[in-house]
Amino acid sequence: MPVYQATATAPVNIAVIKYWGKRDTKLILPTNSSLSVTLDQDHLRSTTTSRADPSFTSDKLWLNGTPDEIKPEGRLYTCIKEMKRLRKELEDKDSSLPKLSSYNVHIASYNNFPTAAGLASSASGFAALVSSLALLYQLPATPSELSLIARQGSGSACRSLFGGFVAWEMGSSPNGSDSLAVQVAPESHWPDLHALICVVSSAKKGTSSTSGMQRTVATSPLLQHRINHVVPERMAAMSKAIQDKDFDAFALLTMADSNQFHAVALDTEPPIFYMNDVSRSIIALIVELNRVSVEAGQGYVAAYTYDAGPNAVIYVREKDVKRVFQLVLAYFPQPAGEFKDVLKVFGGDVPDVNVHAAIPEGFNKDVAAKWEVGAVKGFIHTKVGDGPRHLDASESLLNDEGLPKTLA
Amino acid sequence: MPVYQATATAPVNIAVIKYWGKRDTKLILPTNSSLSVTLDQDHLRSTTTSRADPSFTSDKLWLNGTPDEIKPEGRLYTCIKEMKRLRKELEDKDSSLPKLSSYNVHIASYNNFPTAAGLASSASGFAALVSSLALLYQLPATPSELSLIARQGSGSACRSLFGGFVAWEMGSSPNGSDSLAVQVAPESHWPDLHALICVVSSAKKGTSSTSGMQRTVATSPLLQHRINHVVPERMAAMSKAIQDKDFDAFALLTMADSNQFHAVALDTEPPIFYMNDVSRSIIALIVELNRVSVEAGQGYVAAYTYDAGPNAVIYVREKDVKRVFQLVLAYFPQPAGEFKDVLKVFGGDVPDVNVHAAIPEGFNKDVAAKWEVGAVKGFIHTKVGDGPRHLDASESLLNDEGLPKTLA
Repeated sequence: MPVYQATATAPVNIAVIKYWGKRDTKLILPTNSSLSVTLDQDHLRSTTTSRADPSFTSDKLWLNGTPDEIKPEGRLYTCIKEMKRLRKELEDKDSSLPKLSSYNVHIASYNNFPTAAGLASSASGFAALVSSLALLYQLPATPSELSLIARQGSGSACRSLFGGFVAWEMGSSPNGSDSLAVQVAPESHWPDLHALICVVSSAKKGTSSTSGMQRTVATSPLLQHRINHVVPERMAAMSKAIQDKDFDAFALLTMADSNQFHAVALDTEPPIFYMNDVSRSIIALIVELNRVSVEAGQGYVAAYTYDAGPNAVIYVREKDVKRVFQLVLAYFPQPAGEFKDVLKVFGGDVPDVNVHAAIPEGFNKDVAAKWEVGAVKGFIHTKVGDGPRHLDASESLLNDEGLPKTLA
Repeated sequence: MPVYQATATAPVNIAVIKYWGKRDTKLILPTNSSLSVTLDQDHLRSTTTSRADPSFTSDKLWLNGTPDEIKPEGRLYTCIKEMKRLRKELEDKDSSLPKLSSYNVHIASYNNFPTAAGLASSASGFAALVSSLALLYQLPATPSELSLIARQGSGSACRSLFGGFVAWEMGSSPNGSDSLAVQVAPESHWPDLHALICVVSSAKKGTSSTSGMQRTVATSPLLQHRINHVVPERMAAMSKAIQDKDFDAFALLTMADSNQFHAVALDTEPPIFYMNDVSRSIIALIVELNRVSVEAGQGYVAAYTYDAGPNAVIYVREKDVKRVFQLVLAYFPQPAGEFKDVLKVFGGDVPDVNVHAAIPEGFNKDVAAKWEVGAVKGFIHTKVGDGPRHLDASESLLNDEGLPKTLA
């Protein structure tokens, strides 16, 4: 009896035009389109192995080795059911195919970044789940078609089906058939775009994005204006900025849309805050750095964006990574002598710690206070990357019995 | 030769529908109407003495004993010039009047609250200036007429010409003749309304409101929606809440409009932040206190509002002042044994320091962390109050030579 199994990885994505609000909470249809940058899986990824076997007594899923409940009519349930449905369509057309759609599946998923880092793992997780099942089921579906299903697991997961620069078109159909991801440009179009993630400590857990966005939909008078008038223009302008590799336009739009997302969160009753004083200090540094650079005729250097938490993601071109990193270090000192480890810098050399050289002439040092060690817990340096990858059987997360392997 | 001199005091006001944006920066014409509560002058006030004398060689002004420059075409200059113009009109009609409009003036002004407290002193200051000159010049002008001039000193000053609950109608005339303050209700209508001001430490000086609001006008896509669609409805709803003494409606609108003001500040390029983590912790406490009370069928207890700084102003009915104060004290401890002094509680007894009794049943204590001593520097307890007052000659701030008296 052959083993029907497949393993895939999928990337994290960070939106530059933000998704905030659903018009259909079951199908996960958004109130506005959004656009993101896919980050490199060499650094941040979810890996998922799916196996179909007639001996399995039920569908089962393990996340980082721990069983996760597949609740009836829940999001995991919906994604697995939809993928089985697509497999069934194939089997109905070609009777020679094994009837995998009738078997239960075992699924093991693993994120290579700590949950405590506050990075949304649901996007990469659902994209990897859908990708591994599509490979297992040998579906001829395009990434956009798969994005329709990943979307029902977690809205932003649909954007992790592509590498590069990805739009989630909100669509208009009540059944969600046109609410899907499309690639604006591949990662090869603008490989120069890097990201520096500042992992910020948070004293308390913030409002979940699932409940938070629906409170904004219900109570914010400003959200409707954003949806109807601001986002459509920004989607077009951001696509153009990316096509043109126009960093100034990209940076201005990215920062403006991050600000506006947090503005409508604040306009919610009761208000929702995701950024804290550390987040705001990082903003102040980037604003001042850009001001000095623009005044010197050299354009924008960096663009901050914040999701539903205090972490900063700073988009920056490769040539500027080092100085932006050093500038942040000058205000957010790290424990001495443990740089490589503490900073969690993936995928790039750790810059020299000559932080004072990072402060350019004319920079007003008083825009932020110098913080205590620990205010920023670590950094991740990554860049724009590719879409889901298919791995060899040797990288399976399931053992011969169809149970998750113990990871070192 | 008689001494022509008058002394007046004027109150601070704190808006519940916020003013943010000018359509004319010289005349100070706002982009939207606003509405405020006048606070009691027994606690917070500006006092101003104006004297006209033919021996004075120029117009002069002292603020808290220090000379303040009256710049040509500046705001002080405009207010003094406009008041002299009204006096001249009187003199032209009645030739028996002394020609005070042709004399220079000496003006001494004093605020009884520290500048470091971060309370806007320009509103009470310009209202006291205009009130003392109106008394000196024996003008028959109504408070609304005087508000037209105070407005040109500092926009929100126009609302300090009345006690109680005051609307600044934005008007539509290009010359500003209909952009003035009107009383929505006198202080006697709802004397039960108290205010607890939490003075919050700030690491750095924020963006000035004068420059900040014009950056919002120039760059925030959400501001236009607020101006055109949100504020007109809220002005009507707030007037009704006050007429009805409906604290629930008053509280909801007050908090929503504070949030929205800070939301459009955040939607500005670059973004403007006035609240900090302390401000947000106070919001979290009030939100949770209200949640518990509303769920118990007892309605709202308190309403926070924040101006262009981190200080919280909490509106609360007299019966609830003590428990709201104690709740805040439970999270923002004060130095032991120095309560009366440190807390700067004016106009009310200091409650017992049994802070744990202040946390109601069902209150989620984890909505905020307990802060270090000093995060909230002090408290001011006051209530709705009356408009400008005329003082006796014995309370003049000028000595016989027309120079500011040395204040103890």
